[in-house]
Amino acid sequence: MGGDSGPAVTMPACLSILRRHLSVKLLLVGDESLIKVYLKGLSESELCRIQILHTSAVFADTLRPDNILRSGRDSSLFLAIEQVRSETAEACISAGNTGALMLASRHLLKNIQGIEKPAMIAMLPGSRAGGFTYVLDVGANIETTPRQFFQFAIMGSVLVSAVSGKPRARVALLNIGSEAHKGTPEIRQAAILLTACNDVDYVGFVEGNQIFDGIADVIVCDGFAGNITIKASAGAVKVIENLMHQSIRRRWYYRAFGFCMRPFFRDVRRVLNPSKYNGATLIGVQGVIVKSHGNSDRAGFEQAIEHALRQLAFNVPHLIATRMQKTVDVM
Amino acid sequence: MGGDSGPAVTMPACLSILRRHLSVKLLLVGDESLIKVYLKGLSESELCRIQILHTSAVFADTLRPDNILRSGRDSSLFLAIEQVRSETAEACISAGNTGALMLASRHLLKNIQGIEKPAMIAMLPGSRAGGFTYVLDVGANIETTPRQFFQFAIMGSVLVSAVSGKPRARVALLNIGSEAHKGTPEIRQAAILLTACNDVDYVGFVEGNQIFDGIADVIVCDGFAGNITIKASAGAVKVIENLMHQSIRRRWYYRAFGFCMRPFFRDVRRVLNPSKYNGATLIGVQGVIVKSHGNSDRAGFEQAIEHALRQLAFNVPHLIATRMQKTVDVM
Repeated sequence: MGGDSGPAVTMPACLSILRRHLSVKLLLVGDESLIKVYLKGLSESELCRIQILHTSAVFADTLRPDNILRSGRDSSLFLAIEQVRSETAEACISAGNTGALMLASRHLLKNIQGIEKPAMIAMLPGSRAGGFTYVLDVGANIETTPRQFFQFAIMGSVLVSAVSGKPRARVALLNIGSEAHKGTPEIRQAAILLTACNDVDYVGFVEGNQIFDGIADVIVCDGFAGNITIKASAGAVKVIENLMHQSIRRRWYYRAFGFCMRPFFRDVRRVLNPSKYNGATLIGVQGVIVKSHGNSDRAGFEQAIEHALRQLAFNVPHLIATRMQKTVDVM
Repeated sequence: MGGDSGPAVTMPACLSILRRHLSVKLLLVGDESLIKVYLKGLSESELCRIQILHTSAVFADTLRPDNILRSGRDSSLFLAIEQVRSETAEACISAGNTGALMLASRHLLKNIQGIEKPAMIAMLPGSRAGGFTYVLDVGANIETTPRQFFQFAIMGSVLVSAVSGKPRARVALLNIGSEAHKGTPEIRQAAILLTACNDVDYVGFVEGNQIFDGIADVIVCDGFAGNITIKASAGAVKVIENLMHQSIRRRWYYRAFGFCMRPFFRDVRRVLNPSKYNGATLIGVQGVIVKSHGNSDRAGFEQAIEHALRQLAFNVPHLIATRMQKTVDVM
């Protein structure tokens, strides 16, 4: 039910997943009458893989997240996470209220042993073809201790190794300079912990302008810095896109031969298309919880589901738990 | 002497300023023999407006900033700031070690009355033609109290009103959401202080993606967030530029008719050209100190000098002192 467009975006994405992944079963939590509109024309075998958990209550994006625990327990958002807790579902994907999703997940699902705080991990495009970088935390925690930074590094490294097939993911800390004396005491202390740990391929500090350079596969930061970083980058990309379109509108020969420019724009968009990177994972809880952007399109929501499926395929929460047991000595 | 290219960039910029601003006098601090190479061919009247303070010592970019006070007191960087302290010069412009410049400036020049900590303020392009936004702090302070955020807001607002001619500059706080409960306790408390102050046109929280939207003329944040924001934006811009060039190289018809694309790239670059925005000011000290990017070109260093001249024309440090006296009650 979540996101700017609700089922109009989420339902076509779900059905596309159903068609492409024959082993996937969908448990759709929300208003049955609104959901059923999209199920017309499905084959019997497809319908068999769909279950609806009806609730008419929706937890609005505009509500304060902490209301979810007081008055939102009958909302589709809360019930969807509850299905993961009760092991009726294996993963929950939502385009709803981010704060509420995090709060309810932390409330219902326990943290993985050894993890003090879950974090949101998101994917950013890289400057090289096919390159990408994961960033965490992008908004779950505002204040982060050195031990928590260390835990973020482990979680990010496990997730990226699993889903991208890289045996060792390179991990960096986001900082305002590359020298050891730069940054907050927490970040400097986290660097010491990571350097001492053989289980993490720690490559040092990266600065804001190096995020897209492919220096690291995982970039660790606190939720404030991460949130601002990914939003500022998206803002900068939008500025350029606007500039390009203004430039084309201004000149008759570009307007006239605009079709010649299409492959050019397609190239740029293929790499930067936000749908491609949609889906941030709440990592560190016992379960797979993926948050889609509220303004995501069908392709974007589908991508968020794909993220969840990949993490299930490798059982990322279990991998993190195993790794945490091994590295608990370092901390 | 500072920056990646030293006098090869700074000297041509200085001479261009000398030609365009007939009332400006230059006090060049550095190695006399290297400087004099660039003075050949100048007219007598131009040479009259140039003075050289010789020192062969340079404070390297790679040194720890705090060394400037121990072993860097004979460096061109330290001596240049010393000239502002002794009122031999009215402003200091440098492309040298940023940390050392800040440290030496704070050490030599007193803070403006009412200002607890100086901040670095930088200019960012906006999405509308001719639009721009000032951001502070971009790296001088890592931890910032609500009172200091408030002081940053006053300083930024005074500077922007003076140099841009806007009677009231709109001020926003950078945050991870627009709702009142979002962000750190310090930022939320700063919002309360700013809302209560009639002297500042406070417009609320802005998120990272809104920085370029022209919602605010001044965006206030701590030095960690500011530093990462401007660097991440620059990184994102570079990704797109690379993508565009790759796209053009890949197709024969773009390669063949590349000249047709030139106006297009010129449009984009006219707005985003980093030279145009070069020059961050250390605001809050009793004097005008402008830091140019180390990798800036001649046009960029010239822009940094122009920043200093504009601030001198309006006597920005004095304006800040006057405004602080008026608003001291609020804090």
